[in-house]
Amino acid sequence: MMASPLWLEDLHVGQTFVSDPVTVTTEAIKAFAAEFDPQPFHLDEEAARDTLFEGLAASGWHTAALTMRMLVQCFPLAGGLVGAGGETTWPRPTRPGDALTVHVEVLEITPSRSRPDRGMIRTRSTTRNQHGEAVQISTVRIVAWRRPA
Amino acid sequence: MMASPLWLEDLHVGQTFVSDPVTVTTEAIKAFAAEFDPQPFHLDEEAARDTLFEGLAASGWHTAALTMRMLVQCFPLAGGLVGAGGETTWPRPTRPGDALTVHVEVLEITPSRSRPDRGMIRTRSTTRNQHGEAVQISTVRIVAWRRPA
Repeated sequence: MMASPLWLEDLHVGQTFVSDPVTVTTEAIKAFAAEFDPQPFHLDEEAARDTLFEGLAASGWHTAALTMRMLVQCFPLAGGLVGAGGETTWPRPTRPGDALTVHVEVLEITPSRSRPDRGMIRTRSTTRNQHGEAVQISTVRIVAWRRPA
Repeated sequence: MMASPLWLEDLHVGQTFVSDPVTVTTEAIKAFAAEFDPQPFHLDEEAARDTLFEGLAASGWHTAALTMRMLVQCFPLAGGLVGAGGETTWPRPTRPGDALTVHVEVLEITPSRSRPDRGMIRTRSTTRNQHGEAVQISTVRIVAWRRPA
């Protein structure tokens, strides 16, 4: 279901959103890595075995990109999701076959002093695998627009 | 040219690395967005015109993924580039036709107290377009391995 767009006035601190799950295949992990992060532990099961990851693991940037896709699906900010920046950690890697889900929470809402049509919100997105383990935690600042008069 | 792998002992604060350029096409921007960040300003020139971006712009996660590819090329850490986490900002968007280059600097080197085979380094990567303007700045913590005895 497509939710209606959310304006600055519709948001409150503590509000949460949860995405549908996305399953990550071996093929997708290798294809992303071949294009953007061509390192042995993201490309080949055999080569990955003797590395820090002890087996094939998705690039952290692949996890980040999939997280973005889930955010677009579950957090329908009016005007779109445009991040100004943020902090990201990857507590553990995404593995082939993982079903990821994102849980977003609004941490802070700051109306702009100079631009009355917008504000900045800070959100924390936690991306978990099917065991409930966090594979990514990111705290991002996002523009939120005030409902047009 | 493939540089020789760098161990913890080979690194020093202030050391820099610069990547070869990567050119970003309209097709690549749209393909990445369709898969990972399906929002109008990343998908369609017409729809992008009346948004915050005032024209087609790459997803920030696309810029991040391309930055990773350039880092793998220019910063040959022994054992590979494995980020533990970091901060990322996108001062301006990547546009169709941009030729991006990454400049990496080693900011900090912290040998592990509990694990004598490794350390953690902190680097700042600045991704610039062909006009020298920063499209991404990220400060990332990365594992560095000590040369085996």
